[in-house]
Amino acid sequence: MRYGRFGTYENFLKELELFHGKPAPGGLVGLHMVHLAKELLPEGILMDVICETRKCLADSIQLLTPCTVGNHWLRIVDTGRFAAVFYDKITGEGVRISLSMEKLRNWPRVEEWFLKLTPKKEQNLEAILDEINRAGSDLFDYREVVVDEALLKTRPKDPPVLCPVCGEAYPPSHGNTCRGCSGKTEKFFHEKIVM
Amino acid sequence: MRYGRFGTYENFLKELELFHGKPAPGGLVGLHMVHLAKELLPEGILMDVICETRKCLADSIQLLTPCTVGNHWLRIVDTGRFAAVFYDKITGEGVRISLSMEKLRNWPRVEEWFLKLTPKKEQNLEAILDEINRAGSDLFDYREVVVDEALLKTRPKDPPVLCPVCGEAYPPSHGNTCRGCSGKTEKFFHEKIVM
Repeated sequence: MRYGRFGTYENFLKELELFHGKPAPGGLVGLHMVHLAKELLPEGILMDVICETRKCLADSIQLLTPCTVGNHWLRIVDTGRFAAVFYDKITGEGVRISLSMEKLRNWPRVEEWFLKLTPKKEQNLEAILDEINRAGSDLFDYREVVVDEALLKTRPKDPPVLCPVCGEAYPPSHGNTCRGCSGKTEKFFHEKIVM
Repeated sequence: MRYGRFGTYENFLKELELFHGKPAPGGLVGLHMVHLAKELLPEGILMDVICETRKCLADSIQLLTPCTVGNHWLRIVDTGRFAAVFYDKITGEGVRISLSMEKLRNWPRVEEWFLKLTPKKEQNLEAILDEINRAGSDLFDYREVVVDEALLKTRPKDPPVLCPVCGEAYPPSHGNTCRGCSGKTEKFFHEKIVM
């Protein structure tokens, strides 16, 4: 097993708890998914990842690979599925690994946890983690895929410009005003009105 | 200064390098932004964060607060601006802190780095980091805001259902098929065709 920069299982679990907030089963499934990805991909490539969920899996990927949301090597496309595409950032070739609903039937405690078949308080966290570790790569389906070219383009490194509306800096590739002012992003806050 | 769970400046910088890939100036600006947020917000609240960029700032927030993309306490709304909203997840009240284009003029090395006024190879990383540390909170504008109610709703915790198209599990709140199959997310890969 590979535990990234954490060296041991215990260290990884400790870091998952510190970073993610709890030793979530999904984070541990992520450990095995990343391990499988590294087994399947050629050695020595520069790997990027697209994660299909905003859940625990994304945090395991951030901890166990060089890819984070803040360095642009991890992208989230939230299809809501427990899956991720690990690929060579130059060629776009890679693997899509997903939690297999069929294989999950062989691992009743993992299935119970993931599909929420029993109330959380009746589930035994230790037993779930243990079964995830016994299952390992056997939890997944995978297939070879090629990531679309548009996603392989490197971002333009142009200097930021000032938005004529809000006065803040933004990447000029976003348009004539920043995406906040042009309404391209959802509106998510308003000023506090002091009575 | 507060360094989250890292205790010291040196430990934070080391972790930033391990997690983010390099001791990026933007990550260090993030340290001071998170510090200011904690000074401005009441003690003891449960804080969530909306980060307005996918750059280094997002990684500092993940390292220095309990909020990560994988635990849903950090959300990214990519307006492209170097700014974040730190708020009480119950009331929605909080502060929006942004890198101030006006104040940046007082810190020429930080300005040069951020606005890319000189080529990167002519910039001195140590000098930039040093100036960021001397500037601290003086780099920012901030104002009180209230986060929109729709974003404060807790996610439905319904058990996942199987997508009738791809057969993978997804949250039922996404619709009759998963968002990948319904085309609600961008298409980002295709199967590898073996000749």
